[in-house]
Amino acid sequence: MPVDTRQPADLLIAPRWLVPVEPAGAVLEHHAVVVTAGRISAVLPRAEALRRFDARIVIERPGHVLLPGLVNAHGHAAMTLLRGLADDLPLGDWLGRHVWPAENRWGGPEFVRDGTRLALLEMLGAGITCFSDMYYFPDVVAGLAVEHQVRAVIGMIVIEQPTPWATTTGEYFTKGLVVHDQYRGHPLVSTAFAPHAPYTVSDATLQRLRMLADELDVPVHMHVHETRAEVTEAEQRHGERPLARLDRLGLLSASFAAVHMTALDTADIDLVSERRASVVHCPSSNLKLASGLCPVAALAARGVNLALGTDGAASNNRLDLLGEMRLAALLAKAVSGDARALPAAEALAMATLGGARALGLAEDIGSIVPGKQADFTCIDLDGPATEPVHDVVSQLVYTAPREQVTDVWIAGRPVLADGRHTTIDATEVLARARAWAARMRSA
Amino acid sequence: MPVDTRQPADLLIAPRWLVPVEPAGAVLEHHAVVVTAGRISAVLPRAEALRRFDARIVIERPGHVLLPGLVNAHGHAAMTLLRGLADDLPLGDWLGRHVWPAENRWGGPEFVRDGTRLALLEMLGAGITCFSDMYYFPDVVAGLAVEHQVRAVIGMIVIEQPTPWATTTGEYFTKGLVVHDQYRGHPLVSTAFAPHAPYTVSDATLQRLRMLADELDVPVHMHVHETRAEVTEAEQRHGERPLARLDRLGLLSASFAAVHMTALDTADIDLVSERRASVVHCPSSNLKLASGLCPVAALAARGVNLALGTDGAASNNRLDLLGEMRLAALLAKAVSGDARALPAAEALAMATLGGARALGLAEDIGSIVPGKQADFTCIDLDGPATEPVHDVVSQLVYTAPREQVTDVWIAGRPVLADGRHTTIDATEVLARARAWAARMRSA
Repeated sequence: MPVDTRQPADLLIAPRWLVPVEPAGAVLEHHAVVVTAGRISAVLPRAEALRRFDARIVIERPGHVLLPGLVNAHGHAAMTLLRGLADDLPLGDWLGRHVWPAENRWGGPEFVRDGTRLALLEMLGAGITCFSDMYYFPDVVAGLAVEHQVRAVIGMIVIEQPTPWATTTGEYFTKGLVVHDQYRGHPLVSTAFAPHAPYTVSDATLQRLRMLADELDVPVHMHVHETRAEVTEAEQRHGERPLARLDRLGLLSASFAAVHMTALDTADIDLVSERRASVVHCPSSNLKLASGLCPVAALAARGVNLALGTDGAASNNRLDLLGEMRLAALLAKAVSGDARALPAAEALAMATLGGARALGLAEDIGSIVPGKQADFTCIDLDGPATEPVHDVVSQLVYTAPREQVTDVWIAGRPVLADGRHTTIDATEVLARARAWAARMRSA
Repeated sequence: MPVDTRQPADLLIAPRWLVPVEPAGAVLEHHAVVVTAGRISAVLPRAEALRRFDARIVIERPGHVLLPGLVNAHGHAAMTLLRGLADDLPLGDWLGRHVWPAENRWGGPEFVRDGTRLALLEMLGAGITCFSDMYYFPDVVAGLAVEHQVRAVIGMIVIEQPTPWATTTGEYFTKGLVVHDQYRGHPLVSTAFAPHAPYTVSDATLQRLRMLADELDVPVHMHVHETRAEVTEAEQRHGERPLARLDRLGLLSASFAAVHMTALDTADIDLVSERRASVVHCPSSNLKLASGLCPVAALAARGVNLALGTDGAASNNRLDLLGEMRLAALLAKAVSGDARALPAAEALAMATLGGARALGLAEDIGSIVPGKQADFTCIDLDGPATEPVHDVVSQLVYTAPREQVTDVWIAGRPVLADGRHTTIDATEVLARARAWAARMRSA
């Protein structure tokens, strides 16, 4: 009997197609990815993989495409509980008259726990393996990410108004830093500073934040140029555009992620490009609140790193990064007037590697490359909405719905297995969401 | 034993919520709809319905919303076989260098049959109960609508260039009229004239078409102002904008549906409004081909009837009218700069009653009102993506994915029952789609 010379491995996944995102646009047919200790150990032809590796678990997905786990680079997970509470309103009214009052009335650890669990259920089912969160009670969100085994970048929120989470600026910093300390070096959870927006945080606070971010080596994640009104008011009040102000305060750098970024002029685009900051595009939210349009093609032409976010469910109302990817690709063409803008492969990169870069995690996630974490999303392309398959990347971007996501792995662990959640109790989460709606309705 | 005094009925459906579309924005809780001989006989509270009617079939849907069947007011069904064949290209290149050559090479009755069946499978699963089609071999499409029991408005296409369907203008008319005669008075299939576009049909042909349309009392359905280039070229060549030319030829009327309608100026909007023509908005297609933006809010403000279309799968790439509804609502806000534009209830009306009006079928379909045809779509709102339900209409427009459509009835007959197609063999249709892709790839 011949000696088995195969290398041991934990997991071998053999999909019909494998889209590694690096190199850009590549589609590997009949390949397999091999996972050991939560990381990718090899990507190679299926037959060779089976010959060389003795994997404990072999998953065959003969009508499916395997891609890097989707990275949701901006959101407010707990806001799922406010989904559909106030639609068809502009940002100012929506925030000031509906969202902030609701949060001040209902917001608390229990609200954040139940809302974030609902968001995790929705996001995992949609193939999102890593999410960036900006919300109150980041300690609760971080705990849930660990409990349900989801990769997360937890924002240490700073906003100069009282909320159920903190009252003074000092308290926001202190409480945020406790979360940072608790998760330092954690394999799934990292932290970022999350100053809310230029119009809610003062110069002094932003300077203090920048110093701390430099010392602790954490990224900064901020709503910037969400609307034209934000830009116009800043010019009137401070004689300075918000981006220019952030640059004066030393915030714009490769570790800065600017979310939304509408109403950009050429100087703004130059500035973002020169400072190597990332832009997180949230197309549904920008359209729904009539905030404005992000010039994605112009930013891409200047080499700016682009990521995608769902934003919160109160302004989207879906946590569906495949949907955002499709909308980004469609919208970039209309905004630039050029149907060649943001072609499918570039849109897919935004939803994966671009997001990883924006969150400072590109060494670990965002593409299927040996050495990176084994974060994968597997989508079944065999169905009425996704046949025939002339072009796999086109199908992923323009056609594949999140409902065809069958399997999701994070750090090599299955969190969605053949459509079934393995780390979260869907029935309980949905019951609690319904109970919240009833409670809010009867108030 | 008491005599049963209940009225007999064929079908009684009792959903958690019923959204009749008329009156606009209404949501009826714990109501039922009663169907007799394919038509709606009553809409009333559930308990009263069960007391008054003895229905052969009673369907309870306790976590679902029932709405009128969705009306896809513009498409090219057979083009599903070209899905993803040529993306990220402007209309001119896309048509001239990819789509028309592919159609001339592959197009024929077999292509149309297999492509249309795939489209029917996708559309029925997505809750579409009525579709308007503009394509070659309309005889084949009409036959399939009858075979699979789908309501259809079949376009008698006229385009002044040779195709596999017809060579001369006269042949387009003759062959179209044969289809018209065959389906005159058919309960599911009606016909419309479908001149392709202003730039592919001459004045003389349009005049002949208008006379015939008047005589036969059929609507006219046409691509109009699809791109700014179309408008500019017409102005240069004829000294006249396409809409003005169509008006001069007497085509603009309440039985005219103008598809796409980008690059509209105030005079164009006035003209459409005064002539009471309908506008069929195809938001995904307009974005993807960078065609331009349709000023939906401005048209709505002038009282123009608005409908929604998926367009063909080669330029969308989904036949998902719920998705188009959501995109229309989002995009109208950005285009008008007003987050209150096209609120959820109005977007839902576009996808149902507005479509029915554009196709000349508003007396029979588009709302859940006694006397109308029993065309319904039932959507399960109980799931991670659609909880909690603060607002049913918001959930339908901004959140509900087509994958949560569970049941579809057309003229009172179930065509999708608890997620299962009853009139079409999905396995065979998908196998044929895959075979086409293989054949086209290897050519």
